Amino acid sequence: MKLSFDLDHHRVTGSKPFRIAKVSTNVKKLYKDEAHYQALLAEYRNEISEMQEMLYAHHKYGVCIIFQAMDAAGKDGTIKHVMSGIDPQGVEVHAFKKPTEDELDHDFMWRCSQRLPPRGRIGIFNRSYYEEVLVCQVHPEIVQKYQHMPAEVLKDMPKLFDKRRKDIQRFESYAFRNGMRIVKIMLHVSKEEQKKRFLERIDTPAKNWKFNAADVQARNQWDEYQKAYEQAINATATEKCPWYVVPADDKKNMRLIVSAAILHEMKRLHLHWPKLPPEQKAELAKCREMLMDD
Amino acid sequence: MKLSFDLDHHRVTGSKPFRIAKVSTNVKKLYKDEAHYQALLAEYRNEISEMQEMLYAHHKYGVCIIFQAMDAAGKDGTIKHVMSGIDPQGVEVHAFKKPTEDELDHDFMWRCSQRLPPRGRIGIFNRSYYEEVLVCQVHPEIVQKYQHMPAEVLKDMPKLFDKRRKDIQRFESYAFRNGMRIVKIMLHVSKEEQKKRFLERIDTPAKNWKFNAADVQARNQWDEYQKAYEQAINATATEKCPWYVVPADDKKNMRLIVSAAILHEMKRLHLHWPKLPPEQKAELAKCREMLMDD
Repeated sequence: MKLSFDLDHHRVTGSKPFRIAKVSTNVKKLYKDEAHYQALLAEYRNEISEMQEMLYAHHKYGVCIIFQAMDAAGKDGTIKHVMSGIDPQGVEVHAFKKPTEDELDHDFMWRCSQRLPPRGRIGIFNRSYYEEVLVCQVHPEIVQKYQHMPAEVLKDMPKLFDKRRKDIQRFESYAFRNGMRIVKIMLHVSKEEQKKRFLERIDTPAKNWKFNAADVQARNQWDEYQKAYEQAINATATEKCPWYVVPADDKKNMRLIVSAAILHEMKRLHLHWPKLPPEQKAELAKCREMLMDD
Repeated sequence: MKLSFDLDHHRVTGSKPFRIAKVSTNVKKLYKDEAHYQALLAEYRNEISEMQEMLYAHHKYGVCIIFQAMDAAGKDGTIKHVMSGIDPQGVEVHAFKKPTEDELDHDFMWRCSQRLPPRGRIGIFNRSYYEEVLVCQVHPEIVQKYQHMPAEVLKDMPKLFDKRRKDIQRFESYAFRNGMRIVKIMLHVSKEEQKKRFLERIDTPAKNWKFNAADVQARNQWDEYQKAYEQAINATATEKCPWYVVPADDKKNMRLIVSAAILHEMKRLHLHWPKLPPEQKAELAKCREMLMDD
C-alpha cells in the first residue's frame, strides 16, 4: 500500500485517557486528486476482499465492524464505498434503528449480539449497542419510559450508564476469546460540517427522502453527545477491541482511513489458506479416479 | 447497454412446455475478450447498483433472486462477480445448506420465507426451497426419514412432490401480490464441464477446501436431477415469477446473461425517486431556517 500515514494516530486502545475535544475532525489530505483517491480506495478494497475470502476459508474468526457517528457524518456512504466490491456472501450489514417492542423486552445487548457475524464473515453494524450509552444517556427518558427496566436500577441513572459501559467492555472481551474481532469506528464530524450536509439534503430534491427533521433537534445536545462518546470510548477501547476515531469532515479522507483500519485489523489475524489433513487428501485422490472413469 | 442478445431466449414463463434437454449449456460468446467482458460486467453492475438505490428509496418492492444449479455450475462465483459492487446495505445473501433440527420441525418453506428480503432490498438465495423438489425428489428418503412428515402424506411420494411444486407456485404468486419479486435462475452446466471443474478443484491445492466428495456421487443421478429441474421449472415458471435458464459452461457468458436478467427484472418495476408530500416539504423549509439560525 503506497499510502503512508500513521494509523496509530486514529486508533484508541485505552493506553491513555481519550479526550474528544483534542481530536481534529479534519486532517491533511491523503490523496492528490479524484483519480488518486479512486485508485487508493480500489487498492484497499481489493486487499480487504482478498482477506475476506481467506477469512471465510480459514473459518475461525468473525469480524464485526461497528460504525457510530452523529447524523450525516457519513456512515451509509462509507459502508457503501469501502465495502462494496467485497463478495456480498462474505459481508452482512445490520442497521439498528428504533428498537421493536420485542427487542425492548430483552436485555440491551440482545438484538445486536444475536446478529454478530458467524465465523468467516464480516458483519457491519450501522449503529449498535453503543446507542444504549449514547442517545440513551443524552435522553435517559428512553430508558425510564420504554425499556421496562426494574425500578431499583433506575434509581441511579449515572451508575446505570457506567455499568452499561462496563458490560459492553466485558461482552467484547468475551466475544474476542470466542474468535470475534470487534472493531469500533467513530466518524468524527464537526458541527459546522454537519450543518452543511443537512442543508445539502434539504436543497437537493433527490436527497430529501434521506432527511429526518428530528436529526436537527439533536444539534441542541451536541456537547452532551460528544461527552457520551468520550465516556463510551474511554470505557471500552482496548488493545484487543480498539476504537478508531476518524476525522469525517473530508469524506474521501475518511473512507481511506476507515479502509486502512479495517485492513489493519484483518491483517492482525494472520490468516492463511487451510491445508487438508492427509485422510482428506486420500479421499480427493479417490474422487479423482472416480471422475476419470466417468 | 451495448450488449445485444435475446434475453427472451433464456427466460421461461410457462407459455409453452419447457424441455431441459433442448436447452444448450453453451451459447455464442457475448464478449470479444477479457477487457470487453470486464467493461460489460462493470456497466451492468453500475446499472444494477443504481436500480438498487432507487429500490431502497422507493420502498415498495423487495427483489429475491434464487440461484439453483448442479454443483460447480458457478453459483458462488456468479453471486460474487455480479453482485459485488452493489452497496452491501442493499443486498443480503442467504445460503441454504443442510437444514437444522429446528428447521426440520417446520413446513418446508419456513426457513426460506422468513428470509425473504424486506422492501427496498435485494435478497440472494444460494439454493432455496426448490431443493425440496430437487434433491428431495432424487433422494425421497430425506423426506421419509428426516422431515417428520405425517404418515398419510408419505403414502404417495409422486403426489407429495407434485403438491410441493404447486405450493411453491402459489407461494410465489402470493409473495408477488405483496410486493416481492422472485426471480429464479438456473445455471445450466453440462456433465462434462462439471467434471472438468471438479478435477480443477482437486488439482489446485488452494481450491481443495471447496471440494466435497459427496458432490461426485450426485453425478450418478444426473438424469434424475435434470428431470426434477424440468418438472420444477414447468410447474413454477410464470410471466410474473419467471425462470432464467442460463448456459453455464462459459462462466463469463453466464455472468453477463445473469446480469442482464437481474437488470431486466428490476427495470420491470418502473421505479422512481420518491417525492415528498407538501406537508413534509414545509417541514424541510422550517428545518432550513432553524439550521441557518444555528
